[in-house]
Amino acid sequence: MTAPEALQWSVDNCTIQRSLEIMGDRWSLIVLREVFQGIRRFDDMTVRTSIPRQVLTARLRRLVDDGILRKEPYRVPGQRERHEYRLTEKGLNLYPVLIALQEWGNRYLADPAGPPIEFAHRDCGEPVHLVVRCAAGHDLTGSREVVGRIGPGAVRRATPAAVGD
Amino acid sequence: MTAPEALQWSVDNCTIQRSLEIMGDRWSLIVLREVFQGIRRFDDMTVRTSIPRQVLTARLRRLVDDGILRKEPYRVPGQRERHEYRLTEKGLNLYPVLIALQEWGNRYLADPAGPPIEFAHRDCGEPVHLVVRCAAGHDLTGSREVVGRIGPGAVRRATPAAVGD
Repeated sequence: MTAPEALQWSVDNCTIQRSLEIMGDRWSLIVLREVFQGIRRFDDMTVRTSIPRQVLTARLRRLVDDGILRKEPYRVPGQRERHEYRLTEKGLNLYPVLIALQEWGNRYLADPAGPPIEFAHRDCGEPVHLVVRCAAGHDLTGSREVVGRIGPGAVRRATPAAVGD
Repeated sequence: MTAPEALQWSVDNCTIQRSLEIMGDRWSLIVLREVFQGIRRFDDMTVRTSIPRQVLTARLRRLVDDGILRKEPYRVPGQRERHEYRLTEKGLNLYPVLIALQEWGNRYLADPAGPPIEFAHRDCGEPVHLVVRCAAGHDLTGSREVVGRIGPGAVRRATPAAVGD
């Protein structure tokens, strides 16, 4: 057999990879889950998760540096000023990633009662789900209808893989 | 201000968290990206990624153990039997996670030419995208239309957070 065609192409500009580099590890997505649930303060973020405090500090800094969260100051009477974390537009636009992870988890890993967290349509209150649609307007009904392929920004690798087996 | 309501609820049964535990780290999703692109053999998986070989071994084992990939034997003449990795149905159903990561990345992190990888509708060849739809049939048009909330499987935390500021 010949080598898969994809091997001839570089993934240096892969946007999946770049997204994952910003996410860093699963803790970043857990932090975002908490913020999406209205949990915005450092100490509160440690209540439901087992995230180590120094990891949380690092992940929050990274998410702020990358423009996904922004810091908002607040002050409790008698205490020093602190800040809480809010989603930016860029951060809010990550909700399909959380929904996609949750839908897969709901299918394969859920307890019978269902998930403890839900995403809903703000206007009508109904829960939301993801639909895969193609540019011709077809809604896809199964995973076998999707195919991965070389994209418009593909660049040939400088040192192509030896074609062989 | 009172504590966020979400703090009163456990996330021990969170399906986002369970999905992320299986994914482990970003390397698992990078491996899945490669398999979705038709790259199925260990050595080939090291060509386009900088994944260390021992990490790749561990991630592949985990993905097989969790039923996301399956091993298929093959033999090159004159060499010992080896195996390649194929997506199971459970693995194929992860493509919305990759599409969601890619769509976000395409929006914020792409080179002008676009991404090197694309997901398309097998029947008509058009690229696919995700639509967020609610159970009442509305297609949501923006991230501010989505709200996170307590889900059907939520269980109160055994040791609720002190309600404070």
